[in-house]
Amino acid sequence: MTTVRQLGELALIERLAKRVAGARLEPPAFDGFELRTGIGDDAAVWRLAHGLTVTTTDTMVEGTHFTPQTASWADVGWKLWTANVSDVAAMGGTPLAGIVTLGLPSATPLRAVDDLYDGMLEACRAYRTLLVGGDIVGSPTAFFTVAMSGACLDEPLARSAGRPGDAVAVTGPLGASAAGLRLLLADGTPSSDAERSLAEAHRRPCARVDAGQRLVEAGVRCAMDVSDGLAADLAKLALASGCGVRIDAAAVPVAAAARELFPDEAAQLALSGGEDYELVFAGPSGAVASAVAALPGAAVVGELTDAEPGAVSVVDAGGAPVEVAEAGWEHLR
Amino acid sequence: MTTVRQLGELALIERLAKRVAGARLEPPAFDGFELRTGIGDDAAVWRLAHGLTVTTTDTMVEGTHFTPQTASWADVGWKLWTANVSDVAAMGGTPLAGIVTLGLPSATPLRAVDDLYDGMLEACRAYRTLLVGGDIVGSPTAFFTVAMSGACLDEPLARSAGRPGDAVAVTGPLGASAAGLRLLLADGTPSSDAERSLAEAHRRPCARVDAGQRLVEAGVRCAMDVSDGLAADLAKLALASGCGVRIDAAAVPVAAAARELFPDEAAQLALSGGEDYELVFAGPSGAVASAVAALPGAAVVGELTDAEPGAVSVVDAGGAPVEVAEAGWEHLR
Repeated sequence: MTTVRQLGELALIERLAKRVAGARLEPPAFDGFELRTGIGDDAAVWRLAHGLTVTTTDTMVEGTHFTPQTASWADVGWKLWTANVSDVAAMGGTPLAGIVTLGLPSATPLRAVDDLYDGMLEACRAYRTLLVGGDIVGSPTAFFTVAMSGACLDEPLARSAGRPGDAVAVTGPLGASAAGLRLLLADGTPSSDAERSLAEAHRRPCARVDAGQRLVEAGVRCAMDVSDGLAADLAKLALASGCGVRIDAAAVPVAAAARELFPDEAAQLALSGGEDYELVFAGPSGAVASAVAALPGAAVVGELTDAEPGAVSVVDAGGAPVEVAEAGWEHLR
Repeated sequence: MTTVRQLGELALIERLAKRVAGARLEPPAFDGFELRTGIGDDAAVWRLAHGLTVTTTDTMVEGTHFTPQTASWADVGWKLWTANVSDVAAMGGTPLAGIVTLGLPSATPLRAVDDLYDGMLEACRAYRTLLVGGDIVGSPTAFFTVAMSGACLDEPLARSAGRPGDAVAVTGPLGASAAGLRLLLADGTPSSDAERSLAEAHRRPCARVDAGQRLVEAGVRCAMDVSDGLAADLAKLALASGCGVRIDAAAVPVAAAARELFPDEAAQLALSGGEDYELVFAGPSGAVASAVAALPGAAVVGELTDAEPGAVSVVDAGGAPVEVAEAGWEHLR
């Protein structure tokens, strides 16, 4: 088994550059974007003839964000790219190009890095984005960072644009990724269609670029993506908007397979499970209704309130408080 | 001593956002750049009315790139920002805005993160750049990544634009950072002016944004920054240009303090030491001479050749081969 150390940095860069070139990625579907310099120089260079630039970054650390039990290296590559695309989607933007940092223990098998790139390149094709450069460093812990740039023509969606009284909605059902993670941790071999669908939701979540753009078209101004869990992420949106938020637990759409396999816990998984990469959004009821109508699976789940900024109250159909099992993902636990 | 875990992720983000806001950074001096969304949303957003976007990333890993003995956390923040700015400089661009990823062990003292940000914010001021967002993740190993965007009006400088027969030059003396590292590893307390100057060169190197732009004005088309060592980096430039390169060892400008304190090794440190962040460039002799004349401290150091692509030959004044002690920085050692 060849390791990255045996190959050496320069040969690894050359290998990965060839892999990317061989993938013959299509340029992004954003009028006015033109790549000038890709992999192999001190920096990537492009022209964006009009619109605004949207830039984000996301990282996955071995042991913290993934283990060999729950995700292959290709899955990690896909998920990392998806997490970045999702941030661009949450601004109402079109993803364009990403640069990759690999932090690699010297004993990392070359095969693992190949697989990681396969996953990222698959995601590049799925989201029609380019991989235009990066950096390789030695590290005792494996970690991968993508910095992604995108573009939007209009004013971007903002976490801070919500107002008390705004309706709150999500673009699709939640809880599938968290339910999939439970399955994979418990056993590892999904055997029914429902199990396979949940494992797939955990390993290969999809960013909602289309949904972000539909929100803009519907006149919605306030959104973010659900990466850490609905309740935790809505707390951030509410805090940024200077509002509280009420979530009607019974209104939260739950992934069907999660409900089938975890009937008692699915509602909780939908409230607190992360990595579904749906978008949550808020706005005047007309705009929100129009967005929900345009997005199959979307649903109104609550309201922004004049409670203390960032305060989340989850209630059942009768208005009684519902406990949320986990407080979302704490990155520094 | 408060740790980042005790504070928690959200409070840490809020603390760092306040620190950045409190620094009241000036917007970059690039006509047509306008920040729309900074820290606190899913992504940063800006408008760049004209020119090309230049994007790069650099990472520092504890134990690999720095140790408490040789750099404070503030130094690490400064150097990381500088390394990114230097990549933009090597394209002939103006740095604009960076996003920061913190990979933090849960026991990291809060004070260390404050210091890291102080160093980055100092660099933000020095290079007139903005810090516009980022991501915090838990990691057994501390690492820090910056992704930096910049802009250039003209065609960017390229590693691949060199041709056999081109003169090769550097923008200033080399070897000070590597000599400073030797001092810090050996003792740690610089006591003379020369020692202090070398320690400072290692801890607080400066990116040559001005020099990159002078190169463009002089008609130079081919450049990169010296981050891993002159011989190693010229090998990359030559490979990208499909050339070999000859370095005239006696012509390489050596930092005066390095020559004073390490008279026997300074020439080698200038050939192989990294992190000086001068630029190395190549072009027709007229353009190179004009650039050298515009840049005090710059010097012609050799020539691109029609030898095997990437082959480096270092020769003394009589044309005899000179051994290069270290082959530059191998990131996966």
